Amino acid sequence: MTLPVPGATIGVVGGGQLGRMLAEAASPLGVDVVVLDPTPDAPACPPAADQLVAGFDDEDAISDLAERADVLTYEIELADPDVLESVGADAGVPVHPSPDTLRTIQDKLVQNRAFADAGVPVPDFRAVDGEADLEAAFDDLGQPLMLKARTGGYDGRGNAPVESAADARETFGDLDGYVAEELVDFERELSVIAVSGDGDAATFPVTENVHEAEILRESVVPARTSDEVRKRATEVATDVLEALDGRGVFGIELFERASPRDADGSTGRSPGDGDGRVLVNEVAPRPHNSGHYTIEGCHASQFEQHVRALCGLPLGDTTLRAPTVMANVLGDPDAETRPAVLDGVPSALRDDRISLHWYGKREVRPLRKMGHVTAVGDNRGELLLRARAARDALSFRESTDDHDQPDSTQP
Amino acid sequence: MTLPVPGATIGVVGGGQLGRMLAEAASPLGVDVVVLDPTPDAPACPPAADQLVAGFDDEDAISDLAERADVLTYEIELADPDVLESVGADAGVPVHPSPDTLRTIQDKLVQNRAFADAGVPVPDFRAVDGEADLEAAFDDLGQPLMLKARTGGYDGRGNAPVESAADARETFGDLDGYVAEELVDFERELSVIAVSGDGDAATFPVTENVHEAEILRESVVPARTSDEVRKRATEVATDVLEALDGRGVFGIELFERASPRDADGSTGRSPGDGDGRVLVNEVAPRPHNSGHYTIEGCHASQFEQHVRALCGLPLGDTTLRAPTVMANVLGDPDAETRPAVLDGVPSALRDDRISLHWYGKREVRPLRKMGHVTAVGDNRGELLLRARAARDALSFRESTDDHDQPDSTQP
Repeated sequence: MTLPVPGATIGVVGGGQLGRMLAEAASPLGVDVVVLDPTPDAPACPPAADQLVAGFDDEDAISDLAERADVLTYEIELADPDVLESVGADAGVPVHPSPDTLRTIQDKLVQNRAFADAGVPVPDFRAVDGEADLEAAFDDLGQPLMLKARTGGYDGRGNAPVESAADARETFGDLDGYVAEELVDFERELSVIAVSGDGDAATFPVTENVHEAEILRESVVPARTSDEVRKRATEVATDVLEALDGRGVFGIELFERASPRDADGSTGRSPGDGDGRVLVNEVAPRPHNSGHYTIEGCHASQFEQHVRALCGLPLGDTTLRAPTVMANVLGDPDAETRPAVLDGVPSALRDDRISLHWYGKREVRPLRKMGHVTAVGDNRGELLLRARAARDALSFRESTDDHDQPDSTQP
Repeated sequence: MTLPVPGATIGVVGGGQLGRMLAEAASPLGVDVVVLDPTPDAPACPPAADQLVAGFDDEDAISDLAERADVLTYEIELADPDVLESVGADAGVPVHPSPDTLRTIQDKLVQNRAFADAGVPVPDFRAVDGEADLEAAFDDLGQPLMLKARTGGYDGRGNAPVESAADARETFGDLDGYVAEELVDFERELSVIAVSGDGDAATFPVTENVHEAEILRESVVPARTSDEVRKRATEVATDVLEALDGRGVFGIELFERASPRDADGSTGRSPGDGDGRVLVNEVAPRPHNSGHYTIEGCHASQFEQHVRALCGLPLGDTTLRAPTVMANVLGDPDAETRPAVLDGVPSALRDDRISLHWYGKREVRPLRKMGHVTAVGDNRGELLLRARAARDALSFRESTDDHDQPDSTQP
């Protein structure tokens, strides 16, 4: 189904930076965005046309959102699929990606099983409900392993490597409702942004992601790995899309497994075929931080593609226009929560290839995602230095006097 | 002076498509746009944060705008420089480009004199106040000549070629307050978008413009002319910037004069030097239709540069990333004014390199600028065909029932 464009309205549960960049991309197409978010003056608005101030699972408010929208979507995995499904059905408004897909992704055990059933490579995993399951998982998957809460995790929260049952108890408390995964010895973290449209689908170039303390710091595109691995990552992403239902953009996080090596350094595996060299770590049913580079790097950004997919328009070209590096601007890890006043923008922009994206959050908190910078050029190593230099030229002012209301619900 | 970015607010007199695209470009930098426009629900808002509904010369309303803004600008030449100057001074808010520059540009005689005094090549011209002046101009500049109202013209309105004084009287009525220019025999119409920042300046690549009935239809970049002419056009644009005061983006329309040819086809002039091959037609003190290609074509668009210049940030890279063609989406020349319902977007976007920019105008009128499409690629001839095909796939629905209030003040 194609919505009337220009003229359609997208209703988004969540009004953070993803909603903001979605609204920036929707405006040229004549598509309005209305967000629902519990924090007044959420980052998305403006450029979003309007905000409903309400909780993410407030059924009445989501009904109001559906009344104003031609299609519903969500920018947070914590959205309630049951509410979205019933509200969408009552209002006759489609929900994309589908509530079923959201349900699958919200439960990491269900997600892993769905991918394994569809032939999508994932780390070996076991359900854990209690200590006996965990001990059995150690026997099967080795020690340490990665323990993940099945639900409620976000940006690495709810995940931790554990050495023993005692270690797991100390980290997580009870041990009901977890999934244990082999701890993948990976060479690189990769990702692919993929999009399902109305009968068409596309993948963006493979991104190489640099994480620190489970938080994305930089993305380098194309990923600095072999052609075979990039090809395999794209195949896996395409398989993920096929295993999921509903239109929209998905952020597919991947591991490039470090190959087992013989004494002479040869890998003993042929990389690039279906040998488990590329594994799916997690999938987000929405535009993804590792896809922000597409705004400058590609013909149509992940946000424009999301708008097109939600409205049933043909997808745009996902080709990389030039090597691109993105660096996140985060709150200082040790500084106290305070009003966000960013200094150093003129210095950061002295490099004329740097683009700044500010998310409009009023308050800076430790490691909070506040914005990002992008550098486009030729040499990825040089671009990484330039993006980091621009990012490092930015700083948050230590204290100001006009601390107004906090916006504690925004991630 | 550098404004606080993120956090600054730009106040814009006028809320049409230029304000809209300015707000789209301002959002990533964390800069808010507030517009002043007499038409409720002006095109700019959203993505602009807010609109004051008032006339372009309403001093009280412009004072209110200044109260909310850190810098004032205008997207229409019809803004009142005296009001802007006094309001800006009272509120302590800078006005860019300067009211003096606006005054110079608003009067085509003053504009021509300023450029001629600064050594910027313009067509030969004479002031015309009455029939005697016009007859003298015919003697000096030849017949026909181009007669332009000194003030109030816009998009070619108020300009016409005239053969005789009788002809001029029929077209214009009285003959007070005009400027007569030699009718330039031009090979091509070119333009250069140029920007003055806070101590830096830059020019974008030279654009080739296709006009019909005085209205821009397509822009092709780089202009399909010689390297010498492109170089000379850039020099002339740089000289224009130096002759004007104040920061911001300027759209500089140029003629590439058809060289006088000998019988053997040689030009008898050496092109590319200061021989009058490139002449300034008119200058707009704002982002310009012929610069819309920069959104996809360049690293930093004319709108982002305008934001940067107004805020005192360093300018971005104006390099062309790839050949680019823009085609305007206009109201049908013969159709009646009616609510704007655009059909054909899915067809237009079937070419995955096409970007659509919709201006959010509620009402379509004959030849009104309603949006544009852009194609990026390699071969300019092919891109022109692709952009035209996409534009021609779009059409305005003949009639609808829900005709709400007209927005007659938007150009």
